[in-house]
Order: sequence, then structure tokens, then C-alpha cells
Amino acid sequence: MAVGLTGLPVLLPVPGIRLGTACAGIRKKDRRDLVVIECQPGTRAAAVFTRNRFCAAPVLVAREHLAAMSPRLLLINTGYANAGTGEPGLADARYSCEALSRLAACQPAEVLPFSTGVIGERFPLDRLVTGLPAAMASLSGEGWAEAAHGIMTTDTVAKGVSRQLAIAGRTVTVTGICKGSGMIHPDMATMLAFIATDAAVAQSALDRLLRDAVDQSFNCATVDGDTSTNDACLLLATGQAGNPAINSTEGREYSALRAAVIDLCRELAQMIVRDGEGATKFMTISVSGAASEDDAREVAFAVAHSPLVKTAFFASDPNWGRILAAVGRAPIAQLDVNRVSVHLNQVRVVHQGALDPGYREEQGAAAMRESEITVRIDLASGSHEATVWTCDFSHDYVRINAEYRS
Amino acid sequence: MAVGLTGLPVLLPVPGIRLGTACAGIRKKDRRDLVVIECQPGTRAAAVFTRNRFCAAPVLVAREHLAAMSPRLLLINTGYANAGTGEPGLADARYSCEALSRLAACQPAEVLPFSTGVIGERFPLDRLVTGLPAAMASLSGEGWAEAAHGIMTTDTVAKGVSRQLAIAGRTVTVTGICKGSGMIHPDMATMLAFIATDAAVAQSALDRLLRDAVDQSFNCATVDGDTSTNDACLLLATGQAGNPAINSTEGREYSALRAAVIDLCRELAQMIVRDGEGATKFMTISVSGAASEDDAREVAFAVAHSPLVKTAFFASDPNWGRILAAVGRAPIAQLDVNRVSVHLNQVRVVHQGALDPGYREEQGAAAMRESEITVRIDLASGSHEATVWTCDFSHDYVRINAEYRS
Repeated sequence: MAVGLTGLPVLLPVPGIRLGTACAGIRKKDRRDLVVIECQPGTRAAAVFTRNRFCAAPVLVAREHLAAMSPRLLLINTGYANAGTGEPGLADARYSCEALSRLAACQPAEVLPFSTGVIGERFPLDRLVTGLPAAMASLSGEGWAEAAHGIMTTDTVAKGVSRQLAIAGRTVTVTGICKGSGMIHPDMATMLAFIATDAAVAQSALDRLLRDAVDQSFNCATVDGDTSTNDACLLLATGQAGNPAINSTEGREYSALRAAVIDLCRELAQMIVRDGEGATKFMTISVSGAASEDDAREVAFAVAHSPLVKTAFFASDPNWGRILAAVGRAPIAQLDVNRVSVHLNQVRVVHQGALDPGYREEQGAAAMRESEITVRIDLASGSHEATVWTCDFSHDYVRINAEYRS
Repeated sequence: MAVGLTGLPVLLPVPGIRLGTACAGIRKKDRRDLVVIECQPGTRAAAVFTRNRFCAAPVLVAREHLAAMSPRLLLINTGYANAGTGEPGLADARYSCEALSRLAACQPAEVLPFSTGVIGERFPLDRLVTGLPAAMASLSGEGWAEAAHGIMTTDTVAKGVSRQLAIAGRTVTVTGICKGSGMIHPDMATMLAFIATDAAVAQSALDRLLRDAVDQSFNCATVDGDTSTNDACLLLATGQAGNPAINSTEGREYSALRAAVIDLCRELAQMIVRDGEGATKFMTISVSGAASEDDAREVAFAVAHSPLVKTAFFASDPNWGRILAAVGRAPIAQLDVNRVSVHLNQVRVVHQGALDPGYREEQGAAAMRESEITVRIDLASGSHEATVWTCDFSHDYVRINAEYRS
């Protein structure tokens, strides 16, 4: 169950981008498991990838291809992550790019491969290649919703969102889709996110914009603290909106686009957490009063990763002692425990490091019955803050991950 | 269910130590929840406590008392951790020491308090104090097994072990008990461990010995990565064995005692993991070929803490991709993924960073059906190694921690 998600919103086409999908039977029958995204010539791409050292073969190939030329096509499969597959996996990733490039009459290095699914097994290259013509035949500017469905694995809902804004009198659209539900603690980007805009943006500004946006969105999300081998986030800018190109990171136009992309990425990242494996609660962990932003993040993630905190939230148990214990073990240099306060939604539970004398258990219990809960932790030791999003730890998380390969 | 534990072994008395217990009804009726350990005058004590900043009131008081004088009595209660209880909790801890010191005709600072249980609630001081005479009346050198039962919380079995060795022609006994099942990732010592020997040891040698032993035992154990607020490990040396006092950390006598204490502590630490909340498997994560011991530990703990690895083990699924993903995200400076190999027990699954060509899934499946599994990870990048112990992540972990306060 996805906390607070009621279905995919309308996804606006982005001039210059077409999307196609197919059911290629890669791992399961009759499942949309193959997605192709086509960009018009002149599109610029910025990308961030996982920092996991065991990064997948498609990540290695996509990095290599991006360095060589601008992409024309993205090729995405689910079912198999093509990670931990060594040289044979690299060859598979390259071959799939070649196969698509032949169909599209472009260079293999103009194709970027992306995979998500089981780690360590090779994917059935023949089925993927056989599915490509159908995916190409279905290319359409209206294909965002199908593509959002086509990249799902253990996701229970498709995830995507659009924004529009005016830049120098032209309407600019930004649309993004993403997938991810487990192995979510992006050290870069979530499993897979594809965002496109028709704004005209110079490469260096686009690169900077994506890095900032990912830092403030996907890198603030965690389901289980496990960083994936396949994380990738791509931002495409087709330049078809007709705005004067945004050439620098100064100026109102850059700021406006940046704000829209960050806003969109935050919504996508939250969608992933809301659909976290087994999630029944969506939790915002907001830490203020830290001596540095790093300290604030360390404390927030210590709480967000604690299995004891997460199981207490699953039980709607206002077990604030577990929150304090997690704060207390966060690896930060200075912490005055006697200054710490904790709110559950509007209820102050901890004051000056101990139970608030005015707190009554039924207030905490009422807050915990909500499906969306903000945990506000004030360290009262500085002026820095950080917010991360996570979900609870339920029976279903264990079930889903114990049964994943069966 | 406790993996591979078949009941408490015989615990040998330690001359100079007596133990008493009582059912004080502190949190639940008819449960042995109060333990007193008495040491003969002249006993030396070494202690290590949690590094969690939100350390419990009894930890603060025990540290203070230890700094002032040698302990005569340890006072241990279960049911409430007396952590996150602020000044009132400190007053409760002090008062309980005073109450026991009156009964025993000693100084309050000769009493060390220890608590374990729910965080954040004050304990019923009156019930604890009312139970003290019964605990004192039952003091006996034979009381180790009852004490091991008396310190349990979510533990499903009592934990303790004894060793004997000869030092300079005298028989020396070392006996220890401990408790702990959840919130186990000691950054110092497990929840509570009490070890006593009748060896005569100088204070500085005893301190050093305990630090070494804890580093090589309790600090290598993790159930859920959550460091408790109440961790404490105490080593008492009564000096009644009659051996010439061990005054330095050089020499055969120190080495022999050190080896025995480390061995005992490792067995106690493993008992805690075997009885980890919801555990169905006991896993030894052994990392070799690391550039430093710290690197080896980081990798071992990254694997041991991964919820995805732990749920795969619960399912007996040889999902080695999740192991590689955890290795790949370990925060170490250098990792050549193409050198990494992974064994599950005797089965080599990963060779040179990818699936071993000779591996067959049924071999991995057979290894995973065992209840005790060693994961050997060779980084082939150096000569350092580390071993940690952990358990799997089961439905029961979630159930136990969701229901803990109900």
C-alpha cells in the first residue's frame, strides 16, 4: 500500500521527447517491462548515478556513452538489474545498445542503458532485443504514463509528476517519472528517475541544476538504508520551449527552473518513500538546531534508519525513547542531550532531553494513528537543519523481501 | 527461538561473589526482575558503558560511583531502562542505591545501579525498594543461574558461561552472564554483561583487559544496528584465587587470563546474537583482505546491518547480489570490486566480483538451509580482517518490536 498516493497525476508531454513501451517477457509474462525514451537531436542530458562500488553494467556503459556524445535514446528494462554480472553483463548492456541503435539508425553510444530488478543474474538478451521493435513502434509524446508503469518492479503504484512555469515569456514543461520501493537509500539518485524539460539550458547549468535537485530530493529519501547498485537519475533538456538558453547558474530564469525541478524531484522522491516496500506510514524526519547541515542529516538518518523506530511507527506506538536512542547514537561531534526536544506532529513529547511534563500518552497515540507523521527534532545547538523522508517497517517489508526471488 | 542455544551451561561460583534475586513486580507480576550481586571487600572492578549520548540515569550514576570507590554491590532491575527520564530518573537511581546501601550497611557510592527495559518511563521505585530485602536474603555463591534469568527482558533464554584456567599454579574461575536481544549494536558492550573472576589483578591491567575483551566480542555483535542507551559490561576481580597479583599487561599470566576472558566474552556476545529478536539464523560475517582493520569492520557491518541481506537469510535465499550491494556501499576509501570473492559456508558464490562460473544455485540453497552460516568476503586488497556476528530479520522481529509496549 502506498501512503497517501491516489494514482498517477496527469503527465504533460515535453516537446522533443517521445516514449514507447513493450511487454517483452523479460522476467514475467504480460508485463510492461521495456521502455524506450527518445530525445530530439540537440537535447542535452545531465545524469547522476549510484555511488555503490558494485555499480551495475548499464551504469558503467551509460557513463561511458554520456561522456562520448549526447544521447538520442534511453533503453530501460525491468526484471534484471544486470549488476554483479561481470564482463558478460557488460557485453549484454553494450549489445542491447547496439541492437536499438540499428533500429533507430543512430550510433550505439547515443543509447543509454538502464536496468532494474534482481542483482547478479544475466538478463535474457534475446527477449529484450525481440521486444525493441514494439517499443519503438509505440513511441509517442503522450507515452509518459505507460513509461511510468513500464519501469516498475516491486512498486505498487506508478510514479510521476509534471510542472509548468514561464521562462522569459515562454511556457516551459518539466515532467518526471521514477521507480523504486526497496533498496532505497540513494547515495545519488533513486533506483531510476527520468526527468525531461523543453527548456533550453546550457550543459554546465543543467549539470549543476541536477546535482542540486538530487541532493535536496532523492538523497533525502530512505526506505531501508540499502543503496542500490543501479541508481540513476537523468535530466533531459530538449530546448524546444523557445526560451533564450539559460547559460549560467545566476539569474532569475535559472532560479525559476531550478525551483521547479527541485520541487518536482522532491515530489518524486516522496512518492518512492510513500510506496516503500510494506509501508503503512510516511514519516518526515526534520532536524533543526544542528551545528552543521551534515550533523542535521546524520541525526535525521540515524532516526530514519533505526529498525526499532520504524517498527514502533508500524505499531502506531509513540515510543519516543527509541527516537532519543537513535539521536544519541548519531555519529556527530557534539550533542547536548539536555537541550533536545522532539515533536510528533504538533505534540511535544520530549523537552530538554526528557519526557515533557505536559505530555500525555493519548496525545502521542493520537498523533501516531495518522498515516503521515512529522518527527521534529530540535537539537538547540546551532542554526542548521535537514529533512529526510522514510516509511515504517512492517511485516510486509519482511515478506516482500523474503519472497522476492520466489 | 535462539539459534543453536540448548540451555544455560553450568555456571561455576566465583569465590568472593554472591548473587541474589527477587520477583519485585517491577513491570510484570511473578517475574524475577531484581538482581543483587555482592562482591567481597578488595574486589576490583573494570567497566565499559554505552557511547550513546542519551545514556541512561543508572549509567551516569554507576560511572560516578565507580570513580569514587570500589563497588560492594551491583543492583540490577529489568522492566524499565530509566533512560530519557531526566533529573527525576537520576534521583530514582540514586535513591535505589541509598536504599540498598542501608540494608547492606555500606556507602551509597559502593552500589552500582543497572537498568534495562522500556526507555523513557520512570520505574516504580517503591516496588524496587520493597523487593530488595528478598534479593539480599537470597544471596548465594551459587546464584549465577538465577541471576542470568533475573536480568532477561525480550531474551528467550538465559545466557552465561564459565571458564577455568591455572595461573601460577592456582585454579582461577571466570564466570559471566549477560542479557540482550534487541537494540543490539553495542558501541561498547551489550545491554548488560556481568563477569567475575577470583584472579588477583591490578586495576590498570583489569581495565585494559576488559577494553580488549569488549572490542573483540560485544563490539562485534549486532542484531539491529541500534545502540542501546544502557549498555554496560562489568568485570569484577575478587582476588580470592590466591595467585600472585597480575600487575602488568606483560607476561604469561596476563595473557592467559586475557585469552580466557576474551573467549568467554565472545561466547556471551554470540549468545546474544543467537537469541536476537526473531532470529532464525546465526550469521558470521568474516571479511579478509582489507587494507585496514577498520575497512574490514566497515564492510562486515554494512553487510550485517543490511535489511535486504537479513531478510534474504530469513528466506534461506542465497541472494548474493544483496551481499555485493552492501559491500559496495560500505564507507571505505578503496575497493576494487573485481577482486572480491564471497563464500557462503564452503560454497564460493562470487569470484572476481561476479558470479563464480562454477557456482550452481542448489549449492547456495543448500548452504542457506543451515541455521548457522558463515559469509566469507575476501576483498583481496590487503592483509587485515574482521569478523562480526549477526542474525536474520524475520517476521518475528517486526512482531516483537511492534508489540513491545503492548
